[in-house]
Amino acid sequence: MPSEELFLPALNPETVLPRTGSKYPEPFKAKVAGRSKQALGDALGLKNFGVNRVHLAPGAASSIRHWHTRQDEFVYVLTGELTLITNAGEQVLQAGMAAGFPAGKADGHQLVNRSHSDAVYLEVGDRTSGDEVVYPDDDLVAAQSTNWSFTHKDGSAY
Amino acid sequence: MPSEELFLPALNPETVLPRTGSKYPEPFKAKVAGRSKQALGDALGLKNFGVNRVHLAPGAASSIRHWHTRQDEFVYVLTGELTLITNAGEQVLQAGMAAGFPAGKADGHQLVNRSHSDAVYLEVGDRTSGDEVVYPDDDLVAAQSTNWSFTHKDGSAY
Repeated sequence: MPSEELFLPALNPETVLPRTGSKYPEPFKAKVAGRSKQALGDALGLKNFGVNRVHLAPGAASSIRHWHTRQDEFVYVLTGELTLITNAGEQVLQAGMAAGFPAGKADGHQLVNRSHSDAVYLEVGDRTSGDEVVYPDDDLVAAQSTNWSFTHKDGSAY
Repeated sequence: MPSEELFLPALNPETVLPRTGSKYPEPFKAKVAGRSKQALGDALGLKNFGVNRVHLAPGAASSIRHWHTRQDEFVYVLTGELTLITNAGEQVLQAGMAAGFPAGKADGHQLVNRSHSDAVYLEVGDRTSGDEVVYPDDDLVAAQSTNWSFTHKDGSAY
């Protein structure tokens, strides 16, 4: 375990290496190909929740439409414009708008960048144990042990 | 308890009523008089962590310098310029910079607006139970039951 002195209290997010790619199997992986995440919370030594700064290129999605059984999620749009898709339909989020997805609310959500410019947002999620992710539109199930693994809804492998 | 239908998935933070004032006793209350908070996470129905959009007028402080025993804190500067004060000294945070304060790290933090313009930032904190707040510079102790209460370090009332 690193000493606490390694964690500076503040940072410029530009110094945090973006992570691209996804653990989704195909054909879902392609939908988030234009997504990159900077794990700011991890870089600052936080454990109880994660905070990512996410860049979505035009055409990219934040995730497959989903909801969490035990973990809350929060989104704040920093630059650009995103379309939020939920059971209620579509809602355009401009920079400065916020969205929240309470744990256990059975309403899948997904952000899509339908604009011609990059969009950047902050996402926050806690790390309550025993969480499950439900994908209402797709034949996809996520199970969490040390890492996330994905199967078909009948349990068979991708 | 309100039905889930009351929680729209997204909102414009301008629609969230700012909360001013503080539970601090004097002379601490005066230090945060120019602070107002919009509780975005609460407005969106989130329970596991809080997200506030905070405005600090010139001269105002985010809080008395403090650290949490069990709860992580995260800050992201949206507009303006803030000075972060920790054991390491002072660090100027421009818009787009982030800071994190891991639970149990015995290094008090405080943001002060030393500029001539308003500054706005997001603050995130989880709600791990049994948390205590330590104020290293001041004769102040916070105890949480249903609400926070404040005493001198010898336990006597303000």
